[in-house]
Amino acid sequence: MEESSYRQAYGDLKRHQRLLAGASEKERNRMLQAVALKLETSQGEIRASNEQDIESAHADRVAEPLIRRLVLDEHKLAAVCAGVRQVARLPDPIGAVRERRLLDDNLLLERVSVPIGVIGMIFESRPDALIQIISLALKSGNAIVLKGGHEALNTNRTLVELVRRALEPFEAGSGWIVHLEQREDVKTLLELDTVVDLLIPRGSNAFVRYVMDHTRIPVLGHADGICAMYIDEFAEPDLAVNVALDSKCQYPAACNAVETVLVHRGVAETFLPRFEQALKPYGVTIHGDPATAEIIACVPASEDAWSTEYLDYELAVKIVASMDEAIEHIGRCGSGHTDAIVTEDEARARTFLAAVDSADVFWNASTRFADGFRFGLGAEVGISTGKIHARGPVGLDGLVTDKWILKGSGQVVAAYESGQALFKHRTLPPGGSSILSGDA
Amino acid sequence: MEESSYRQAYGDLKRHQRLLAGASEKERNRMLQAVALKLETSQGEIRASNEQDIESAHADRVAEPLIRRLVLDEHKLAAVCAGVRQVARLPDPIGAVRERRLLDDNLLLERVSVPIGVIGMIFESRPDALIQIISLALKSGNAIVLKGGHEALNTNRTLVELVRRALEPFEAGSGWIVHLEQREDVKTLLELDTVVDLLIPRGSNAFVRYVMDHTRIPVLGHADGICAMYIDEFAEPDLAVNVALDSKCQYPAACNAVETVLVHRGVAETFLPRFEQALKPYGVTIHGDPATAEIIACVPASEDAWSTEYLDYELAVKIVASMDEAIEHIGRCGSGHTDAIVTEDEARARTFLAAVDSADVFWNASTRFADGFRFGLGAEVGISTGKIHARGPVGLDGLVTDKWILKGSGQVVAAYESGQALFKHRTLPPGGSSILSGDA
Repeated sequence: MEESSYRQAYGDLKRHQRLLAGASEKERNRMLQAVALKLETSQGEIRASNEQDIESAHADRVAEPLIRRLVLDEHKLAAVCAGVRQVARLPDPIGAVRERRLLDDNLLLERVSVPIGVIGMIFESRPDALIQIISLALKSGNAIVLKGGHEALNTNRTLVELVRRALEPFEAGSGWIVHLEQREDVKTLLELDTVVDLLIPRGSNAFVRYVMDHTRIPVLGHADGICAMYIDEFAEPDLAVNVALDSKCQYPAACNAVETVLVHRGVAETFLPRFEQALKPYGVTIHGDPATAEIIACVPASEDAWSTEYLDYELAVKIVASMDEAIEHIGRCGSGHTDAIVTEDEARARTFLAAVDSADVFWNASTRFADGFRFGLGAEVGISTGKIHARGPVGLDGLVTDKWILKGSGQVVAAYESGQALFKHRTLPPGGSSILSGDA
Repeated sequence: MEESSYRQAYGDLKRHQRLLAGASEKERNRMLQAVALKLETSQGEIRASNEQDIESAHADRVAEPLIRRLVLDEHKLAAVCAGVRQVARLPDPIGAVRERRLLDDNLLLERVSVPIGVIGMIFESRPDALIQIISLALKSGNAIVLKGGHEALNTNRTLVELVRRALEPFEAGSGWIVHLEQREDVKTLLELDTVVDLLIPRGSNAFVRYVMDHTRIPVLGHADGICAMYIDEFAEPDLAVNVALDSKCQYPAACNAVETVLVHRGVAETFLPRFEQALKPYGVTIHGDPATAEIIACVPASEDAWSTEYLDYELAVKIVASMDEAIEHIGRCGSGHTDAIVTEDEARARTFLAAVDSADVFWNASTRFADGFRFGLGAEVGISTGKIHARGPVGLDGLVTDKWILKGSGQVVAAYESGQALFKHRTLPPGGSSILSGDA
């Protein structure tokens, strides 16, 4: 699609978005249920187009892990539909009154949550991500411009078509969904900073980094997840081994898996041999600094070892002389994603939790807990390492912004500037129904 | 300063920022009081350097309005110091627990407000802005990189020096303030996206636009303030005239002053002549569309008239056939800042408030209320037309972000994935003291 045709289509997209955002909470939840039902009853159609994509991928000699992500079998589809129904049950993210203040008699101010507007979503192979993001956009009243991986084109086309059919009976329809099919569309999408309010890229680190480097649209996400765990001098060794093991081996391909373990020299002799023992069954490669190499068997760590996201059964281990050295190391080599301390000393834990400037900072718990579902957010839009807008695991809140609504009765500023009138600025409890809903 | 020396200095800046953020609320407020006192007792020094700047500006034939902004006389200085003391009295923006959830027994999650980190502030002539932003940064525990207008260099230098002297007795000191003096420093600052977390430019629209267009750092602010007021078919004409008059004439140079008045054709004959009468004493130039020209005297509006920010006794008036036309006009020509409706019809007001996608949408009140102080925020960092992070008038909340703190007792994700353990996800009341403060 040409940039000009996008811009032309934009007015329409905004109109469809307003229609969606104007639908009641009940209506939007009904739409979600209809989508789930349609997908559940269209398994044959979905499987057929998915098989076609898988065949082409095999013919194109696409790598096996990528093909595994491409597969949308009965099991995955059931999980996706359960996810859509779960989103329907989540509290409404829009129309919430976050702040309410009576500026003066009959002059009521509210800060209300509203959809961001137009979300751009670019993802690689997984077609289940398409349904997930459509359901989150629907719930939060946002228009969405989607671009999936070309390997999944047939599957994605079928899924979007099924969603459109499911939404046909509803007034808000499906005009708020734009599905891009061409590879060149990505470049155009990245340039649409006057149309798209927020971009959510999903895929490899290199892909996310590419998106971040080639757009002026705000990006929600993270490129790297170089997570560190610091085993303090006052760590309980068994607890430390358990937590560090889970952080690395429970699922090493995740962004919240640990890549660096920093060990206080006071516990290195007790912790490291037990940790080595625990890692052995997983065949983990340890990149150790010279001090570590004196205690356990390891590969000598190169300078890169400390800023590498292994995403595999591989990690870097360094012995540090103090907690300050660990904090400094994390500030220098980390990616601001998730970092943890293991210690029985509360004061030291608090110092670490305050000093480490990452989205998630944990104490005596696995870094693998950094996840929207485990955090109890009910959904996960992504994990953000940016400090602006949303940080850490992001739920539906990441797809809304605020709007200030002021309801007056003819008040003018001149009266307040001249001292004829005085502001009351009485803070009222948030929540409840807003001016927008007509009950306030 | 070279980019490399900045990067070198950055580690230090982060250390000073941590020191500031680590200072207790009481200590930070004492620091603010010390700054106010030092400025109050150094009037001679401040006046002398300010006179020097004013003299140079006159010699350089700087425009009068700019010189007026440059002046830091007794009156302005008193206001600045009162502002610093007011910031000291505001609630602490950091350490607030926004969300709290017991994921499982002894596995407590908190979302806590923390400083953003390093704020870059670029402003034009006004030296009072320098003190204002230093006090806001101090309160919120952020390091700050400042670049003021070169016309105010002597004044700014003196002010920063006085602040440093005032903060000398405190442990957190003033190492968290970096004052840039060279024009070339702006360019470098805009490139420091790995150092500076948020940029706040203050100055002309062209200047803010320049900053937005030349950096990858998130920018808090707004370039244009093309605010519209829609006078509905069901508007009370006297109320409409009062509110529209205040929106335009109470202070036309402000970003929240009205630039466009859209009048429903059903009230045009009654509203417009009265409005014209009310504007007369101010000598307001009216750019009217052909229908308006049939009712009152006006200059024919050019196509540009609808997207011009006049910032003066000048405005555009258009007659519309419906509220939808007004909403559509605002979406097309507005800047997403502040827009208002005047009507006695509640249902129509609600439709307008929901459909207009601007930071502030008002009903029967002057657009000039769009201001952090009038909103009761206690301080104003800026007014943002962005949808990400902060929107509308932004108080101290705009200088903080969140951090997720998880306090466990050795929990691992493997136990939850295998079904051996189950999440409780019990939401607890927010507020109170956080894990960070050691009382939780």
